[in-house]
Amino acid sequence: MPRGFRDRRGSEIAAERGFIDTIRRVYESYGFEPLETPAFEYTDALGKFLPDVDRPNEGVFSLKDDDSQWLSLRYDLTAPLARHVAEHFQSLPKPFRRYQVGSVWRNEKPGPGRFREFTQFDADTVGSASPAADAELLMMTCDTLEALGLKRGEYVVKMNSRKLLDGVLDAAEIHVSQRGTVLRAVDKFDRLGEHGVELLLGAGRKDESGDFTKGAGLDPAQIRQVMELLTGTGAGYRQAPAFHDLKAILDVLRSGGYDEDRVATDTSIIRGLDYYTGAVFEARLTFPVTNDEGESIIFGSVAGGGRYDDLVARFTGQQVPATGISIGVSRLMNALKGRAPSSLASLVVVLALDDVHGSFAMSAELRAAGLRAETYVGTKKFGDQLKYADRRGAAIAVIEGGDERAKGEVTLKDLALGTELAKSVESRADWVQERRAQVTVKRERLVEEVRAMLAGKV
Amino acid sequence: MPRGFRDRRGSEIAAERGFIDTIRRVYESYGFEPLETPAFEYTDALGKFLPDVDRPNEGVFSLKDDDSQWLSLRYDLTAPLARHVAEHFQSLPKPFRRYQVGSVWRNEKPGPGRFREFTQFDADTVGSASPAADAELLMMTCDTLEALGLKRGEYVVKMNSRKLLDGVLDAAEIHVSQRGTVLRAVDKFDRLGEHGVELLLGAGRKDESGDFTKGAGLDPAQIRQVMELLTGTGAGYRQAPAFHDLKAILDVLRSGGYDEDRVATDTSIIRGLDYYTGAVFEARLTFPVTNDEGESIIFGSVAGGGRYDDLVARFTGQQVPATGISIGVSRLMNALKGRAPSSLASLVVVLALDDVHGSFAMSAELRAAGLRAETYVGTKKFGDQLKYADRRGAAIAVIEGGDERAKGEVTLKDLALGTELAKSVESRADWVQERRAQVTVKRERLVEEVRAMLAGKV
Repeated sequence: MPRGFRDRRGSEIAAERGFIDTIRRVYESYGFEPLETPAFEYTDALGKFLPDVDRPNEGVFSLKDDDSQWLSLRYDLTAPLARHVAEHFQSLPKPFRRYQVGSVWRNEKPGPGRFREFTQFDADTVGSASPAADAELLMMTCDTLEALGLKRGEYVVKMNSRKLLDGVLDAAEIHVSQRGTVLRAVDKFDRLGEHGVELLLGAGRKDESGDFTKGAGLDPAQIRQVMELLTGTGAGYRQAPAFHDLKAILDVLRSGGYDEDRVATDTSIIRGLDYYTGAVFEARLTFPVTNDEGESIIFGSVAGGGRYDDLVARFTGQQVPATGISIGVSRLMNALKGRAPSSLASLVVVLALDDVHGSFAMSAELRAAGLRAETYVGTKKFGDQLKYADRRGAAIAVIEGGDERAKGEVTLKDLALGTELAKSVESRADWVQERRAQVTVKRERLVEEVRAMLAGKV
Repeated sequence: MPRGFRDRRGSEIAAERGFIDTIRRVYESYGFEPLETPAFEYTDALGKFLPDVDRPNEGVFSLKDDDSQWLSLRYDLTAPLARHVAEHFQSLPKPFRRYQVGSVWRNEKPGPGRFREFTQFDADTVGSASPAADAELLMMTCDTLEALGLKRGEYVVKMNSRKLLDGVLDAAEIHVSQRGTVLRAVDKFDRLGEHGVELLLGAGRKDESGDFTKGAGLDPAQIRQVMELLTGTGAGYRQAPAFHDLKAILDVLRSGGYDEDRVATDTSIIRGLDYYTGAVFEARLTFPVTNDEGESIIFGSVAGGGRYDDLVARFTGQQVPATGISIGVSRLMNALKGRAPSSLASLVVVLALDDVHGSFAMSAELRAAGLRAETYVGTKKFGDQLKYADRRGAAIAVIEGGDERAKGEVTLKDLALGTELAKSVESRADWVQERRAQVTVKRERLVEEVRAMLAGKV
């Protein structure tokens, strides 16, 4: 498999499905409509939306189509939305409120937990300049995080206005060509702290691995002005007109009972994309998360977004106000390990000994009763069959040998109890010796007895 | 948008989700485990599995990775499975029974209803040579089609053995280099009939559009031998050893009550892929389907598969028996238009007139009661708001003007009844004149009255 990609199986897929179904249920309850777009977009269409305008197509998988036009795999779900809106502007309901969930691809250096294909879940409202549209997205984000099992106080949605930063950049006379680098630098405030960001605003910064990132090249006075905004120590920012927009959003939220414990302003929230024009949002977990190395870490952002009133105009020339938020599903799942809202149902494996027809009849009967049941379809060896059931993580094995059948009985083996044992069993004779984790029942009571054994395990 | 791709919205997405959820529920009830693989595979890995071995990478989207290795988007879900099995052979349960649903990409000439990205749903059993494994897939296919709403008699799963054809190709001394073309020709028997296939087995065939397809170049005696198999007129084929395998599969099916009305043998079933080694399957609809031009057509195959015992060996050198079936989800949905097992819930739009906070409170109340409800977040114009609700296909608009609020009332407008009307309403004053499709109720009875109006429409 190419590097930076991965296969996933069983419970991980079921967990992601549970997350996605839960988010979708909340978004649909708010009346957002699903949209699906293809994996491919024209490269020149995508290029207009890339975060790093200085390096178009950096980080994108691209190929040439048969008619010599360049195609790219979508990098996010915002560019396809803007393209869809531009293509169908007349016929769309306005505002157009859509959600989209799907894979995005980034042709970047992979690392631990950093993949080149991952799942995003976006909601956007296109065609409304109203603060109510932003407020709605934030209410929906709170409802979603709670539907996923987070309690009040375990998350907070932070909000800021990009106009505040723009005001500072104007006041400090920072050139347009430097602003992309400045944005990416201040967006790392959370992770690198004051000193790290100061280095990135100036000459540059060397990280622990020795890699050097070139800075924005600001002078010390400019750096001070930017840092005052981030640390909230500057004078007068609270009077900026940007605060009026934020206040209008907060009014809707507060009146709906979404208080400071759930949505709060924070002037250090920037978001790295240069297309934001107004409010920016970021949802964070407030509790420490244990990473794969067993260390307790501050996990940071699990969702982010903001208002981007100029983006659709890059396609159509027509100004269309828009706002959106994106949940990083894979990131969120990683943070909420063990809280998955869904998993695969318990499995029953019916062994196939000398009467495969009888085994199929039993698994069909169990399925008809709503249970998850299969007949073993591999080799005839008893030990292989039991090992298979164990490796599948099955809850119960159903066994009907010739003796049992003659007496109209079947044996149910509780595999959770008997797991250790099963590994050492090589023959049916060995196994018959061991009766701890099993029970023999009447064949006609199969469904009831399997249900009872499953219930006993809950 | 690049040609051959498409966007999808609302009800079409909900319908596909309903199909996929239903198939998944049946497959999981049979104990099949989900697998997800990335969009990309190494091109050389994929090449081993392409249907047309004479033209490797024909029809595949490929690009060069940064380290100069060629990557391709998956063409089907079988090659990624074989690669996964080869990578994880030791740790997998055996047999390994997995399902996978997802997009596949084909770099082919698009046409009406023929896209370059579409959804497949596959189930495969790897590591079992038992006819029970094939039989299980066929039972599951029948159960799935019925779970999707097809009645007995509306579908039939046909079965054949590739060994029968191989026997004929051997007997007729057809060279290995010609067999790929022969396979693709006989696979078109259903669509082109006897004469068309005879042309493709010989010098070639010109289609209605004038395109010429080169034939396999068989001589008349060879053509006759192949045609006898397809038309069932040949002597002695029923005595072939291939029939023993088919008989063993049928035994399991018949004992489980899957009779000839659901699964039947048919010597004209070939399946075009050259990697099949034994039983091949094809599920067909038996009723005429109306196409987009309003014509009644025989729809043909909605699922197909077979046994491919040599495929994993192309990776590992190790012979691993395997069998599988693939449902063309987009094709099946197209055939079952109007039978979708799921759709979006009815939508309630709460207009935002002079008290947006009050409107948000109402939509929140409706959502808390399990309904799908939104507050309008666009412009303030009343006519725009009602047009929006209409364009969204909302069932009900909730209206609370100043007068209503003073009296502690709200107005519910039944949009299905009032659709034509709403289009011509430009102001609240116009609208107040028209009372046919609306009712004014107590604000505190909002949820009950909305429920009652929705129930009246079912």
